[in-house]
Amino acid sequence: MATLSLPSKPLLRALVGETLMRPPWWLMRQAGRYLPEYRAVRATAGDFVTLCLTPDLAAEVTLQPVRRFGMDAAILFSDILLVPRALGQKLSFENDGPKLEPVSSVADLGPIDVAMLAPVGEAVRRVCRELPEQTALIGFAGAPWTVATYMVEGGTSRDFHKTKRLAYGDPARFGALIEQITTVTFDFLKLQIEAGVEVVQLFDSWAGALSPEGFDRWVIEPTKRLVAALRERFPGLPIIGFPRGAGLLYPRYARETGVDAVGLDTSVPADIGREHLQRQVTVQGNFDPVLLLVGGDPMRRTVNVLRRTLGNGPYIFNLGHGVLPETPPEHVAALAKLLNEPLNA
Amino acid sequence: MATLSLPSKPLLRALVGETLMRPPWWLMRQAGRYLPEYRAVRATAGDFVTLCLTPDLAAEVTLQPVRRFGMDAAILFSDILLVPRALGQKLSFENDGPKLEPVSSVADLGPIDVAMLAPVGEAVRRVCRELPEQTALIGFAGAPWTVATYMVEGGTSRDFHKTKRLAYGDPARFGALIEQITTVTFDFLKLQIEAGVEVVQLFDSWAGALSPEGFDRWVIEPTKRLVAALRERFPGLPIIGFPRGAGLLYPRYARETGVDAVGLDTSVPADIGREHLQRQVTVQGNFDPVLLLVGGDPMRRTVNVLRRTLGNGPYIFNLGHGVLPETPPEHVAALAKLLNEPLNA
Repeated sequence: MATLSLPSKPLLRALVGETLMRPPWWLMRQAGRYLPEYRAVRATAGDFVTLCLTPDLAAEVTLQPVRRFGMDAAILFSDILLVPRALGQKLSFENDGPKLEPVSSVADLGPIDVAMLAPVGEAVRRVCRELPEQTALIGFAGAPWTVATYMVEGGTSRDFHKTKRLAYGDPARFGALIEQITTVTFDFLKLQIEAGVEVVQLFDSWAGALSPEGFDRWVIEPTKRLVAALRERFPGLPIIGFPRGAGLLYPRYARETGVDAVGLDTSVPADIGREHLQRQVTVQGNFDPVLLLVGGDPMRRTVNVLRRTLGNGPYIFNLGHGVLPETPPEHVAALAKLLNEPLNA
Repeated sequence: MATLSLPSKPLLRALVGETLMRPPWWLMRQAGRYLPEYRAVRATAGDFVTLCLTPDLAAEVTLQPVRRFGMDAAILFSDILLVPRALGQKLSFENDGPKLEPVSSVADLGPIDVAMLAPVGEAVRRVCRELPEQTALIGFAGAPWTVATYMVEGGTSRDFHKTKRLAYGDPARFGALIEQITTVTFDFLKLQIEAGVEVVQLFDSWAGALSPEGFDRWVIEPTKRLVAALRERFPGLPIIGFPRGAGLLYPRYARETGVDAVGLDTSVPADIGREHLQRQVTVQGNFDPVLLLVGGDPMRRTVNVLRRTLGNGPYIFNLGHGVLPETPPEHVAALAKLLNEPLNA
């Protein structure tokens, strides 16, 4: 007889749709430059890619914020651009962000080299050994659209004109590129899951750049295929989608992609999240990182608004964007304290 | 007995809520670098501020696209940053955009100098003399929030952290700055209206950067006060609001600010615009400028989608963002032709 095993870690409980008295929490970019212990490791690693691909160091920085603040989840320290690298694209990080040699089709890429991603699996195994019992480990990848923008633009961009021009003007060619990215992204996530991550998050940071038709075709469709492939191979593994900037298309994303949870960016009103998203999926977010920078009363007030509205359903407290490097660690400690108190204290 | 005078210009008819067989159209940044005749004038003017403040030149570039393509509206060639300039802030334009000396409170500003804006009124009068009879003239200003971001950041920004930090952390100080901007913005629009513009548009290009509470306080509230002041002084003058990136907050903006029309950015789905906005206000937008760059079938298909959905109510065809400098003028000519044909031809 099969035993129905319900998860006990708070993050996993929220992801199967449970409403918790105290919502579980973690923060995007919780491992990062705002922590002095991170900066120390970063200085020894040299470049950023080396940090991601040295299992001991990646595991160490993954664990640092959990040790300090006791979040309900660690998120693997890694980078979404390891996927283009495994597709043969040169990658480096300069002061103003990532740099890649721009491509415009699969023909510009080398053969897929999944072995390049192997150190990430090793980092996951090391994190698992040291993670507190009630803390979940999240793996992640960029969603295909967002990864494609970096590959086509050669880095970040304000408006993604090159990528959009290719997507709108030559959808067959762009579709083949998206397909190739999706294949490697599946491999990247498979490797993380097999090594021990319990949840995956798909970052679609530039989902808001597209027209609605483009969003359907290049955000929803590839995400749906990726989610279906993961479901087939890893039934029951929770998937969080974060289509940043999706705006009025958030409900469509929640309805159609098949994800278990949707990450809300800073602009989504809590009441609309509750009415139009939380009936469908677990929601995660969306505290403004600038409020974490500000701290004090403005922080407390907004945290309470979120807990009073979204906290009445399946909810994971998080930011709506990553922790800012200038954030005082004491503000994160104050946030942790707030989130551990009962709501009406 | 008072005579009820209904407008005859197509743009004005759409703005009082009429559904037209052929929706009126214009394009954000229709006067600009994609036109060789603009580049010629720009070269003689020297710097960008001089171009805006030389009535003959500003009038000439305002009229150029209307002569070539016959849009239903001209939009005054000017800049939203003339307002900070009239507030005593130094302004220059470099290759990567506008530069200002950052401020963080009203105390950092000089006395208001509305006389600095006078050449804009003269440009309006010159445009009016030459405008075709059925073409409307639109004036504009930045909405207070967006103007404030430039003033506080000292130019454009990716994330507006300085401005948001000030707004969230010291709302009294930021509120006084917004108040001062609102005063001069009213003067700027008054001057344009008294000189002959028939419609005004408020550009809130960075409305999407705020948290929902910030949006209510710094986008909706100041816009509502500005709209109320304009209504009192110029009853019947149509006002278009463009809260770019408002996402799920678009309906709240349409409901609460009092504008007659709402500009939709490229991400808003036409069906949601029809269901949730067009019952309240005239809608304007939201063709993706990258599709205008691509032209051909992808352009035609999306134009038809917009006309079939939004065209069944009060609608002004426009882009969801400005014309891109690399746009071939022939694509704009093809668009003009498309928009002049009956829909099912």
